[in-house]
Amino acid sequence: MKRLLAFAGLLAGSTAAVAQDAPINHDAEYYILQAQRSAQWVEDDAAVDAALAEFRDSNGGRSPNIISVLIDDIGFGDLGIPELNAIRGYETPSINAFSDEAMRMVRMYTEPSCTPTRVAQMTGRLPVRMGMGDTTVDIAGFGLPDEEVTLAEVLKEAGYATSHVGKWHMGDIPESWAMNQGFDYAQHAIHQQGQLTIFNEDAIKEQVSVGIGDYLDTYTVDNWFRPDASAMMTVIEGEAGGPIREIRMEPGETWGASKYDEMNQAFQDKTLEELERLAGGEEPFFLQYWPMIPLDNTRAGRDGPQSPNGGLYVDKMQQLDSWLGDIFARMEALGVAENTIVVVMGDNGHFDKYSPQSGFTPMIYKGGKASTHEGGVRVDAFIRWPGMIEEDALLNSIIHVSDLYTTLARLGGAESFIPRDRLVDGVDQSAALLFADEQKARRDHVIIYSINSAKAVIKDQFRLNLPAPGESPIIAKFHDLYRDTREEFSVSTEVGAWGGQEFVRILGRHMARKEKFPDTPPAFGVPYEGIENIRPETQAAVETFLIRRNAPQK
Amino acid sequence: MKRLLAFAGLLAGSTAAVAQDAPINHDAEYYILQAQRSAQWVEDDAAVDAALAEFRDSNGGRSPNIISVLIDDIGFGDLGIPELNAIRGYETPSINAFSDEAMRMVRMYTEPSCTPTRVAQMTGRLPVRMGMGDTTVDIAGFGLPDEEVTLAEVLKEAGYATSHVGKWHMGDIPESWAMNQGFDYAQHAIHQQGQLTIFNEDAIKEQVSVGIGDYLDTYTVDNWFRPDASAMMTVIEGEAGGPIREIRMEPGETWGASKYDEMNQAFQDKTLEELERLAGGEEPFFLQYWPMIPLDNTRAGRDGPQSPNGGLYVDKMQQLDSWLGDIFARMEALGVAENTIVVVMGDNGHFDKYSPQSGFTPMIYKGGKASTHEGGVRVDAFIRWPGMIEEDALLNSIIHVSDLYTTLARLGGAESFIPRDRLVDGVDQSAALLFADEQKARRDHVIIYSINSAKAVIKDQFRLNLPAPGESPIIAKFHDLYRDTREEFSVSTEVGAWGGQEFVRILGRHMARKEKFPDTPPAFGVPYEGIENIRPETQAAVETFLIRRNAPQK
Repeated sequence: MKRLLAFAGLLAGSTAAVAQDAPINHDAEYYILQAQRSAQWVEDDAAVDAALAEFRDSNGGRSPNIISVLIDDIGFGDLGIPELNAIRGYETPSINAFSDEAMRMVRMYTEPSCTPTRVAQMTGRLPVRMGMGDTTVDIAGFGLPDEEVTLAEVLKEAGYATSHVGKWHMGDIPESWAMNQGFDYAQHAIHQQGQLTIFNEDAIKEQVSVGIGDYLDTYTVDNWFRPDASAMMTVIEGEAGGPIREIRMEPGETWGASKYDEMNQAFQDKTLEELERLAGGEEPFFLQYWPMIPLDNTRAGRDGPQSPNGGLYVDKMQQLDSWLGDIFARMEALGVAENTIVVVMGDNGHFDKYSPQSGFTPMIYKGGKASTHEGGVRVDAFIRWPGMIEEDALLNSIIHVSDLYTTLARLGGAESFIPRDRLVDGVDQSAALLFADEQKARRDHVIIYSINSAKAVIKDQFRLNLPAPGESPIIAKFHDLYRDTREEFSVSTEVGAWGGQEFVRILGRHMARKEKFPDTPPAFGVPYEGIENIRPETQAAVETFLIRRNAPQK
Repeated sequence: MKRLLAFAGLLAGSTAAVAQDAPINHDAEYYILQAQRSAQWVEDDAAVDAALAEFRDSNGGRSPNIISVLIDDIGFGDLGIPELNAIRGYETPSINAFSDEAMRMVRMYTEPSCTPTRVAQMTGRLPVRMGMGDTTVDIAGFGLPDEEVTLAEVLKEAGYATSHVGKWHMGDIPESWAMNQGFDYAQHAIHQQGQLTIFNEDAIKEQVSVGIGDYLDTYTVDNWFRPDASAMMTVIEGEAGGPIREIRMEPGETWGASKYDEMNQAFQDKTLEELERLAGGEEPFFLQYWPMIPLDNTRAGRDGPQSPNGGLYVDKMQQLDSWLGDIFARMEALGVAENTIVVVMGDNGHFDKYSPQSGFTPMIYKGGKASTHEGGVRVDAFIRWPGMIEEDALLNSIIHVSDLYTTLARLGGAESFIPRDRLVDGVDQSAALLFADEQKARRDHVIIYSINSAKAVIKDQFRLNLPAPGESPIIAKFHDLYRDTREEFSVSTEVGAWGGQEFVRILGRHMARKEKFPDTPPAFGVPYEGIENIRPETQAAVETFLIRRNAPQK
């Protein structure tokens, strides 16, 4: 809700325009690099400005369109490398072709699960800063606070038309939703794929889930214990400032595989529709398509294997690849392939709880989704901008997903709308991307959190898996990631001693900086509040939730 | 020594020409595929013959030249995939460019270590069949028997000029050496890189080895116990039928890092020299360049890191890449790029005993060199034949290194010289390669041995790690390799039960076939016999070896 904040600023007598020129507040490590590279950065900034001005001149004075495709639970190497497709018996030809036209951000680090990664991309901040490090699966009554200034809000201020379709997963309270966080239009699921692929009747039949209603309640006293997943809100749709409605379910209806298919197809169709609408508009556009597939957990009578691999996620990944191919083709047809930045990436590592049936298992790095090892946070990530970003290129700089916030704002001419009253973790990687030069990167480290706890510090090619409380950093595990992708061989004591101490100091500076910019809690509220057509069973589930939340806890 | 055998055949009254037309004797599984695909195979064979005839017509009636580059201890994905270079901080641009012009044999299976892989490529047979499954590191007095008919002997019969440079490692007795196994000229090390990179003075100084002469012998009684590695024969050179000389050491000289560098440079130089000589000849040529690097184990005062990774093997791999680039360029300059088949591949997985210092650790698959898991036997493998084999292509068929024997013989018009009096494991994969079609593969399985013991059976996408003696195959580990590259998730009991039984039957047929074609021992003899200029210390080491070998053992 950038506008409200700006308005509040005016009321308080501050001058928004002046404030916007101040430097962005970054985390401590940024200033160490800046001190070493300041002259180069000034030069690079001028070169970036010149390149962007030239682009706008060639684009009728408009900034580039921006499309973000964020794919669930994709490990490093799943997409864009035909050899690694081959050894796992599937194909992603559309994304592979796209990757040939794009730059691979080789060291893109996400957060370890869906919600925090999406929060980081949307806010430019580590999710721990506003208590959004956890991924909720059910009715939870909290979410992304109104006070956060999302990338959509930043771009909107700079004149972008904004639209979001697909997954969202940043809370079940109204202020968290996309149409209330800067998107002119949004159609998105409220929760993630748990209820939609696991807690439903098809999943019970296939013994994927423990059963929801389909069990003998002989010994059960608490009838609210097991979820009635069909009662949870599914997909909502609305425009900024307008009414919000659930669009996928009628009262009494139950969810299952066919509904999931219908929803996913509708997201794809709506994305194409939005693409067409936005491409025909006067403003540059920012369109997010965050698909729910490849996640799926039941065959449920649908077609058999689509790949020699045959894993459920892999088959769905092939479907998604084909859908993305349709989107890339439509971009061509609409004449927006050339003037649009497209980012395609995963949101975290493999959901290895469903390995090997899913078809995906952690391949190159250790760990999957929810792990803070490399396998949890290293993903395939591509950025395409014809003529502006080198095609079929590799950029081997560390990039954190929050950097997309600052960088895309810069590329969209919206940097001045990034808030200056808070710490922004995302750094501007424009120069590294536009000039394909790792020496122009403005980050060489990342701190990996699990929910509220820092678990690893990575700088350059080294990774310290942080010592447990009371454990000396000297014997903590310290890895050279170039030589040891799986974190199996902790390097020697000597390097460990240096690394342990130095890396704990990096963490110390990060923590000290929180004294000036303290972490705050997420927003709490009443789930689904204000949905016009809330179903009676959904209303009952909310009331159940509120009774449970209000049960005495002290 | 093909000619002697053929001569013996004539003496016995058999008709060599008739015998040569008989079908090759293959292992049992081959006939199961043949029974299913016989009509297709007849058709494919005709198409292969037509394609080869057309090639020869366009090549002045000559068969293609063949170059084999076999690289030590390279895991899957080390070469040819820039993304996987990047994440490990090094570059192999020459091989990557080569791979863009070549077909990657995605499922090339080798044996788990140097000697058996080289034996399989040279003989077309599993090394267990002639007792060559083990890798020796010191003076051993045995090697590849004269009775084996090598690929060089087969091609020579068909008119090829043959040459071998670099590693050989198939025995320290004369009948085993390249110039006595079908190569017109050979310059090769006798042993592997143990004495040359580990058991030398530089390695003692860097604490890589336990010490050879440089230790306090206060408690030592057996002075022959520790090796005098400098006494072992190093590099020999000679022509078929001519004298063989050691070329790298003078009496009293000790080996070290600088000698290793000199030797490797000489192999590279000699390869270029041989390439030039052979390219100027009238016959098609078969040239093997089997480098000793990337293996190396000491910095030894040489230049510092050549890559951000900085591991010793990785740095040397970059050097080898550059050398191979020189060879590819020389091929262009000599006009033999177009009419030469080039195979570049690894001989087995990473030498993970030296991880992570080497810079290489098992990345995608489980296990390294000497392991019978995928990581021990899956390697990068490329075949380039401009205009004949699809460029920048992937062939996802199982190919065993022994298949190169049969296939290259076929492509070189020498198939009739493959012996018919023994079992040949290598199958003819010409049709799959020439038509880039997995459905034309003549193998869908491989049996993985460690020395003399079968350890795993792989068919299609499934792998059974064979049960230990007395263990039921039902609970043995059974993996879907598409879904589980690291062999971490054994698949369900139901599949396990089928797979276990079915795969043990495959092994049973393989073992039953040995009743007709029994395994035989390797050749035994006196090490280095007949070397003209054997050094006195080498002669003493041989005598010591013989005393030890002759010590009563029963």
